[in-house]
Amino acid sequence: MNYRMITYIMGQILKVVGLCMLLPVVVGLIYHEHHVLLSFLIPFAITILIAVAFTIKKPKDNTVYSMEGFVSVAASWIAMSAIGALPFVISGEIPNYFDALFETVSGFTTTGATILGDVEAMSRTCMFWRAFTHWLGGMGVLMFVLAIMSSNDSRTMHMMRAECAGPNVGRLVSKSSFSARILYGIYILLTLSETGLLMIGGLPLYDAIVHACSSAGTGGFSMWNDSIGHYQSPYVEMVVAIFIILFGVNFNLYYYMMIKKFALAYKNEEVRVYFGIIAISTAIITLSVMKQYATVPEALRKSFFMVASTITSAGFSTTDTGQWPVFAQTLLLLLMFIGSCGGSTGGGMKVSRILIIVKTGIRELRYIVSPHAVTSVKMDGKPVEKDVVRGATNYFILFMLLMAISVLLISHDRYSIEESLSAVITCMNNIGFGVGRFSPSGNLGGLDSFSKIVLCFDMLLGRLEIYPLILLFSLKKN
Amino acid sequence: MNYRMITYIMGQILKVVGLCMLLPVVVGLIYHEHHVLLSFLIPFAITILIAVAFTIKKPKDNTVYSMEGFVSVAASWIAMSAIGALPFVISGEIPNYFDALFETVSGFTTTGATILGDVEAMSRTCMFWRAFTHWLGGMGVLMFVLAIMSSNDSRTMHMMRAECAGPNVGRLVSKSSFSARILYGIYILLTLSETGLLMIGGLPLYDAIVHACSSAGTGGFSMWNDSIGHYQSPYVEMVVAIFIILFGVNFNLYYYMMIKKFALAYKNEEVRVYFGIIAISTAIITLSVMKQYATVPEALRKSFFMVASTITSAGFSTTDTGQWPVFAQTLLLLLMFIGSCGGSTGGGMKVSRILIIVKTGIRELRYIVSPHAVTSVKMDGKPVEKDVVRGATNYFILFMLLMAISVLLISHDRYSIEESLSAVITCMNNIGFGVGRFSPSGNLGGLDSFSKIVLCFDMLLGRLEIYPLILLFSLKKN
Repeated sequence: MNYRMITYIMGQILKVVGLCMLLPVVVGLIYHEHHVLLSFLIPFAITILIAVAFTIKKPKDNTVYSMEGFVSVAASWIAMSAIGALPFVISGEIPNYFDALFETVSGFTTTGATILGDVEAMSRTCMFWRAFTHWLGGMGVLMFVLAIMSSNDSRTMHMMRAECAGPNVGRLVSKSSFSARILYGIYILLTLSETGLLMIGGLPLYDAIVHACSSAGTGGFSMWNDSIGHYQSPYVEMVVAIFIILFGVNFNLYYYMMIKKFALAYKNEEVRVYFGIIAISTAIITLSVMKQYATVPEALRKSFFMVASTITSAGFSTTDTGQWPVFAQTLLLLLMFIGSCGGSTGGGMKVSRILIIVKTGIRELRYIVSPHAVTSVKMDGKPVEKDVVRGATNYFILFMLLMAISVLLISHDRYSIEESLSAVITCMNNIGFGVGRFSPSGNLGGLDSFSKIVLCFDMLLGRLEIYPLILLFSLKKN
Repeated sequence: MNYRMITYIMGQILKVVGLCMLLPVVVGLIYHEHHVLLSFLIPFAITILIAVAFTIKKPKDNTVYSMEGFVSVAASWIAMSAIGALPFVISGEIPNYFDALFETVSGFTTTGATILGDVEAMSRTCMFWRAFTHWLGGMGVLMFVLAIMSSNDSRTMHMMRAECAGPNVGRLVSKSSFSARILYGIYILLTLSETGLLMIGGLPLYDAIVHACSSAGTGGFSMWNDSIGHYQSPYVEMVVAIFIILFGVNFNLYYYMMIKKFALAYKNEEVRVYFGIIAISTAIITLSVMKQYATVPEALRKSFFMVASTITSAGFSTTDTGQWPVFAQTLLLLLMFIGSCGGSTGGGMKVSRILIIVKTGIRELRYIVSPHAVTSVKMDGKPVEKDVVRGATNYFILFMLLMAISVLLISHDRYSIEESLSAVITCMNNIGFGVGRFSPSGNLGGLDSFSKIVLCFDMLLGRLEIYPLILLFSLKKN
């Protein structure tokens, strides 16, 4: 294990996080919230100091294998969460450190679950930082580091894999730093487009930026207690719904479209199934809830928004789904597990994994009948490599096992079984809310510190897709 | 597909079921319940007629492959449930046919979930039949047919596999009819032992037989509304707990002990883990519920009984677990999924499958770090065949997918999400009850017919381990 290289990568990542803390300082200056400026400047100084100490000398041996990639990503995410929580504590806006940590992990992992009872009480500066953690965590900080590094080292691929979502991460172009730059370019462009469209809908610049950042990471933090519903604007609702769906698409697709390889984009089975699931679920839920709304278009809009918000794991809300029929709620619950596309900022198991898993299940039925006549699982018309199939099915197994362990670990707390279960589901899939009555009651602030740590761990497991974190904590055994 | 052979096997099975209907007639004569005799004699006559029609001519081609095995077992189980429900309807004790069907499927699959509000209102004759379906379904009717057939046909193995539980069914001896006879011999011996021990505890013969039949199948039907708790006897509680645990052990073990291969029995990893889980869960739950009981031995006894009743999927109850801490309830919920050993009469996923699944998950973590240094999954110290590993993990996947679909299908009904979820969990794992508040509210009688059919399907899926039923219903595609 190349520990020097791990701390070096951590240093690079912390440098970015540290510098990002200057953004809320700018916001604070604009809105004359001078009392919170120090809450960001102190952590900024600490972070930069640590980062410089870690990176002042470039390691001679810059070998990075999978293990180094996973461990450095896991360690960096924990470190940046620990540091990112400081402004909330120092400013006194979230006085309890565990609460602040939970909120920050929820931000970076783009979960959007909150321990805050009254979100609107927060200063604009802290609120901006809270939303910005979504943006940064959505595409990944390491990805950002790769984008600004001009290294053409093929080994950085190991790191990219550790932070990227989905069963099969591939480079777009041969240089991974260039891949990272393309992805971040698309990410920034989409975020700016949404900001613009929200402003056209009448939102002030600040509101537009906060909600665009939240959407981009498919996070779900809003600046209002009643989330997007606050604006009472079907236009805003539609803009957000469409953009979270777009952020839930595999970003490779946008690249293919940029270089005019439309056939490649169109052929992508995962994306087609993703859109198919959204369309069908919206139709079914609309039929199911129609009676509760004045007009069909209204039912359609509410259904579409909640389907988009759930499958992409954004977790914005414009409706109290507790009033919906249980059937519609159950469908939403299933969408949580499916999640968005691999290589997007969305959460859940990812459509491609679910596709592989379902196809593997169907193949097993064929296998039972005639073991010799069985062909391999196919995606995009091509056979999927055995390793990818094994990876997807085992990911599902580990996900379920960790879910069971997590529910057991937080069951000592004040929740009932169904509330514990829904809290774990919402955290591991990076959603941020439950469905109807099947939700953690109220916000998660009432849990004890141990439960909060478990849920933080679950959010990180979901965002980093299990392996980095587990490998970090099983280091001693190797 | 050899359809002639399938109907022939069905005929053999129905013959056994038909003859078994004479047993309640005997019970009815003893207890002078003459008004219900016809309710059994009519279905008896119908069943025997059909059975004779199906078996009057032995098919020339007696080829049986996996497909024939699976399909005949699935079709037989549906047919015998459909017929087994008739006495309840004709006698008027369960007037609605769907209710009666549910109760019968619940009996044969040894689930023990009931649609009855007041169990005690039933006649002794019908009550006996209800308990006896547990006994017959526990070891399997086809197994009984194999035991009485003197066929030394190696192909009957395909049928045995379709009805037997667990990831890896093997014959004990080279002749499968002899294997079946050994298994049924052990089964009868254990049932008689329990009947005797219950009588020593003061139970009347009838009560002892009913509860021994229920325990043998790890079913859970009792003749009292308050289940085993009715007797208020720690002795009875302990006898039942110990026997359901014994019925949850792989029956091969008893055979090894009979032929004095103790080393082989002791080496069995599944059984050791099974006992280990029972011991550890009992200890943890005792600690968790201790405060609620007057003495530690009482807490220990209640915990031990509920752990045994849950992991073996019996579903007897002597305690209201709703009063227990959520932590204890959550642990019980996990035990439901684990289930008992393969090759036993218990339900759930089976300890061996869970073991393979957990080991596969851990191996995946190693694989991520160093793909080339990974060894195969081991059980009993030997590497598990790849097919068995694939089978176990894919079984898990199919189980979860079918669970999700089932919850969605019954979510239109009057239940909340958590009640739907717990109803499906209890049916698919053949348990028969929920845990504490995480239960279907009341008995399942209030559901509509469609939901009852879905849950019947789930119980059969759980008992026959998915494949037979799915293959039966996808026949047209082949």
